[in-house]
Amino acid sequence: MASFELLLLPGDGIGPEVMAQVERLVQWVNETGEAELETTSDLVGGCAYDEHGEAISEEAMKQAVSADAVMLGAVGGPKWDDVPYDKRPEAGLLRLRKDLELFANLRPAICYPALADASSLKRELVDGLDIMIVRELTGGVYFGEPKEITDLGDGQKRAVDTQVYETYEIERIARVAFELAQKRGNLVHSAEKRNVMKTGVLWNEVVTRVHKDEFSDVQLQHILADNCAMQLIRYPKQFDVIVTDNLFGDVLSDEASMATGSLGMLPSASLGAEDENGRRKALYEPVHGSAPDIAGRDIANPIATIASFAMCLRYSFDLGGLADRIEGAIAKVLDQGYRTADIMQDGKHEVGTTQMGDAILSAL
Amino acid sequence: MASFELLLLPGDGIGPEVMAQVERLVQWVNETGEAELETTSDLVGGCAYDEHGEAISEEAMKQAVSADAVMLGAVGGPKWDDVPYDKRPEAGLLRLRKDLELFANLRPAICYPALADASSLKRELVDGLDIMIVRELTGGVYFGEPKEITDLGDGQKRAVDTQVYETYEIERIARVAFELAQKRGNLVHSAEKRNVMKTGVLWNEVVTRVHKDEFSDVQLQHILADNCAMQLIRYPKQFDVIVTDNLFGDVLSDEASMATGSLGMLPSASLGAEDENGRRKALYEPVHGSAPDIAGRDIANPIATIASFAMCLRYSFDLGGLADRIEGAIAKVLDQGYRTADIMQDGKHEVGTTQMGDAILSAL
Ligand SMILES: CC(C)[C@H](C(=O)O)[C@@H](O)C(=O)O
Ligand SMILES: CC(C)[C@H](C(=O)O)[C@@H](O)C(=O)O
Repeated sequence: MASFELLLLPGDGIGPEVMAQVERLVQWVNETGEAELETTSDLVGGCAYDEHGEAISEEAMKQAVSADAVMLGAVGGPKWDDVPYDKRPEAGLLRLRKDLELFANLRPAICYPALADASSLKRELVDGLDIMIVRELTGGVYFGEPKEITDLGDGQKRAVDTQVYETYEIERIARVAFELAQKRGNLVHSAEKRNVMKTGVLWNEVVTRVHKDEFSDVQLQHILADNCAMQLIRYPKQFDVIVTDNLFGDVLSDEASMATGSLGMLPSASLGAEDENGRRKALYEPVHGSAPDIAGRDIANPIATIASFAMCLRYSFDLGGLADRIEGAIAKVLDQGYRTADIMQDGKHEVGTTQMGDAILSAL
Repeated sequence: MASFELLLLPGDGIGPEVMAQVERLVQWVNETGEAELETTSDLVGGCAYDEHGEAISEEAMKQAVSADAVMLGAVGGPKWDDVPYDKRPEAGLLRLRKDLELFANLRPAICYPALADASSLKRELVDGLDIMIVRELTGGVYFGEPKEITDLGDGQKRAVDTQVYETYEIERIARVAFELAQKRGNLVHSAEKRNVMKTGVLWNEVVTRVHKDEFSDVQLQHILADNCAMQLIRYPKQFDVIVTDNLFGDVLSDEASMATGSLGMLPSASLGAEDENGRRKALYEPVHGSAPDIAGRDIANPIATIASFAMCLRYSFDLGGLADRIEGAIAKVLDQGYRTADIMQDGKHEVGTTQMGDAILSAL
């Protein structure tokens, strides 16, 4: 029987509550007898800073490197607004992404049919929506140097961030996007601002070449990022896969996930390159944040984190069958009318975090 | 009688068609006897490149500097996809913004009541919506250096863009936002990514200080740009004024304008600093682009450009009364059921560009 090491990093805010539901599912997986998952837990984000003075400890980083996969809850909160920049909660998450070289962030924006009416967009625009946003995650303005604030005297400061992309970084993320499209709707939109940014010019050039040389069977459309932000609202179903840089990916994926009406429901996977054994480092986390305002009240929606665990089973542990069963259970409890507060609708049955976990486990 | 020089730069695509309607309104203004407007026309964008080999000629730049205001149609189109980067159509627009120091870009996102049903968002979310996006326009990643592509050999290139902000640039745009808020809903959201970008850290710091020292009567909220992209869809009416940097402003304003359902209707103003006589350089243009696919067919919606001309009358020529009358005429023809193709609805009366101009002129 295959056995895997899974590192759990619940993080801050609602992170620990939603991760607790994943721990129950880990136990369920072990009981199926199809695989053996061994879990370790550690700190990341503000709680790690409180404990170790760093947003992630060296010990936790070592575990993350050696684990077969990492699951993360969420990081951040107003409590840490004033900690030094390089020790802020987000630094833990960014270090994980960078040091594990998780360059491909997959963010599905799907509309759960049961929730189509919860979207701000008209039902007919989002019903059945299924977009995959492929965001570059280890380059761009997030990590480029210089990144600094200089004191110019006389009360003036100068802040600089640097967006950098090299050819190979664009090639590998483009390949991920085209390969995904081949298994989906066969259409890729590549979003950049080539009319203003040199990184956009290179992005456009490299994506065009990878397409021509390796994936000419897939349909490719170039779109300016500002226009993409528009089109995601005008007619979201025109998209299948969207590939874009780190910063545009951050903004566009949040926008798209909100359009689905399913924000508390959406998982994500951050993947590294395949090694010689066909295995890749991976981190799974919900798209939503740490929601400090509702933390500790057992009312957060655990579905995004549970769906992230399903992605982990599928992509990291090759347990697609179990992933299907979990996703089926999620759809079933929604059909049965169970709703956490964030997705509550008239006539449905409002439940808390643990109760949603109960419902999903009994559906299994 | 006050007299003003207005430079018209129709540009590419539908630019000349929509600007032709403004020329008719210039004549109307002159006939009212309230002011004398003298217009000159010149080229900008792809058409300027075709004629002069530059996206704007030195002669046109000189005119723009000496004019009391500039009106621009739109620039760009696939015809110029392969011209050298520094001569592409957008370079003309960017040079105008930079050389005239038009640092404050005002982009209202309002929902014309007659068009509330045209939005992708549910009617109740956008009906009566009135947001003002204040976008910094002469700094950030648009103009920072280095901005270059370097050949690394072996088929590898490295592209770099640099986002730079200095304290004074943030101060002056923050003041514009707070002053506008005082005349509106008294609420400013400042959007950045301080959790990832040093320019975001400085942005946050400076806006906080300007608020505390000069505008503590206005309500200020800091919001992360990705969350702002979400909230614009979730519940857009929570916003009054949003102030943000050049790149986020580009994406968020396009998103917001689409949410209103009124994209073909939205004007913008780009303003410089006041000189010792209280006058400022200014450029007015529609938010929409050059729409090359429908150019030359007399079907484009001229309302955004006409509404930009109304802003010009109000902000640059102190002719608020005439601006009110033009805006009233726009509302009236919409109520009467006139619609260009982009905003056509069942049971309304479809008209072309010139006919829409006719209708607005007779409403006046
Ligand atoms: C928490 C923050 C650093 C992060 C990001 O900007 O990438 C988040 O917004 C995300 O999208 O995962
Ligand atoms: C045409 C382009 C350079 C421009 C920009 O990116 O600023 C446009 O998108 C805008 O928003 O005015």
